[in-house]
Amino acid sequence: MNRNQLFEQIKRKKSFLCIGLDPVLNKLPKHLLKYNDPILEFNKQLIDATHDLCVAYKPNTAFYESRGVKGWQTLVDTWKHFPKDVFTIADAKRGDIGNTSAMYAEAFFNEESAEMSFDSITVAPYMGKDSVSPFLEYKDKWVILLALTSNTGSQDFQTKQSDNFKLYEQVIKTASTWANSDQLMYVVGATKAEEFQQIRQLAPDNFILVPGVGAQGGSLSAVCNYGLNSQCGLLINAARSIIYASDGLDFAEKAREEALILQQEMAQILTANNLI
Amino acid sequence: MNRNQLFEQIKRKKSFLCIGLDPVLNKLPKHLLKYNDPILEFNKQLIDATHDLCVAYKPNTAFYESRGVKGWQTLVDTWKHFPKDVFTIADAKRGDIGNTSAMYAEAFFNEESAEMSFDSITVAPYMGKDSVSPFLEYKDKWVILLALTSNTGSQDFQTKQSDNFKLYEQVIKTASTWANSDQLMYVVGATKAEEFQQIRQLAPDNFILVPGVGAQGGSLSAVCNYGLNSQCGLLINAARSIIYASDGLDFAEKAREEALILQQEMAQILTANNLI
Repeated sequence: MNRNQLFEQIKRKKSFLCIGLDPVLNKLPKHLLKYNDPILEFNKQLIDATHDLCVAYKPNTAFYESRGVKGWQTLVDTWKHFPKDVFTIADAKRGDIGNTSAMYAEAFFNEESAEMSFDSITVAPYMGKDSVSPFLEYKDKWVILLALTSNTGSQDFQTKQSDNFKLYEQVIKTASTWANSDQLMYVVGATKAEEFQQIRQLAPDNFILVPGVGAQGGSLSAVCNYGLNSQCGLLINAARSIIYASDGLDFAEKAREEALILQQEMAQILTANNLI
Repeated sequence: MNRNQLFEQIKRKKSFLCIGLDPVLNKLPKHLLKYNDPILEFNKQLIDATHDLCVAYKPNTAFYESRGVKGWQTLVDTWKHFPKDVFTIADAKRGDIGNTSAMYAEAFFNEESAEMSFDSITVAPYMGKDSVSPFLEYKDKWVILLALTSNTGSQDFQTKQSDNFKLYEQVIKTASTWANSDQLMYVVGATKAEEFQQIRQLAPDNFILVPGVGAQGGSLSAVCNYGLNSQCGLLINAARSIIYASDGLDFAEKAREEALILQQEMAQILTANNLI
């Protein structure tokens, strides 16, 4: 999916919501356990209930890998259930030397070999340019590069200062020479709203994927104050607050209600900023 | 496997060789293509031919993930074929916020849920302490943290200087407060032999996993000059030079010959340094 298609979707759905599909078996509604693949059924019902309210889905691969081969199968089958118009993010935090990143790109972008082809993948920047470039060779596929994450450990290295810039700022400055905003997004946690102003100076056009709204305590309006750009430029991820809104028979319905609250708030923000 | 067991294995085999199992289907000897899982057969024959000459195997997960569900099955089946006395490394370069890294730890350390349980996993440090800690909760399991990698992109961020230390030095200094050398190793590329002296000052006791000898051009003797410590402290990885030594019927035999050359060189080094 290219940038215009993503923005068109945002305008059509009046939403820049991304739903994180990070399911854990023992948190699932009990009635799903009768299914052959309870997690797949959980994901399918969540997708069916919310896909008109969100513009992206983001399964975190760790939650699938933790269940071994059958978990990987669930990831493939979940990918197959995504509607064609939705932007899909493999939240995999990969990155390795060039020839190895090329294999990761196959794993998540090459449907022929891997039976799935996400629109994008999250990548860790530590190993530099040649760890990122192989993903960019796929047309209309995106790298979503970790910049400033939402966890406490983000303070360990990401904010180290050198040459008058913090490391995450160096990552943004440097990566902007590898690809333009048609293929490159950044991850910036919602818990860092005060940093968005400076980040927008470094990356005015890029989309930013923002985790940390909801369960992790970040504020949607604070992020939008500085984060919005002329094509919206934000994908706000919410996971636990939506997918675990209820653990009963009504889990999908309640998930939709939670998604709707966020979507309506986003519609107001888009309107107020003359984006729709 | 704990540190003493690893050192005992090194002394017994007179080797600190790690073999990287990074197979690509179209580089395999043609006669293997008749097997149901050619890559598994390739790995099995390589393991059978070399396990008395090396102390560790390191499958890079990207090469398995690229083939989707069947690739993940190959990884599981390869793990099942490892001899019990060998140190196993999931070269996965993972790392995410705490609750997600806990899922990655399950994926690679918890045999009950994932059907495999490696001794160690490579982890990217960018997200800091809580992205690493969940792996350390498993007894006798190891984190092998990326410090200074062997690729050209290592110069993009890893060598940025702040507070008088380069980023990779900060990583080593900071991570040494998270775990001791019984559970924490570092990755340092063999192409960076001149940096080993300084790294050994920061991490005198830790094992260091060293990729880049062989195909990537690093020198074994240069690395050993500064890298050895009182328990050897080095695991030298070679992959392509061994696993692709021949693409004929004799591929396993030729792989053994290549491994033997390295093992014999290592035996001399261990003897010269009074480690055996």
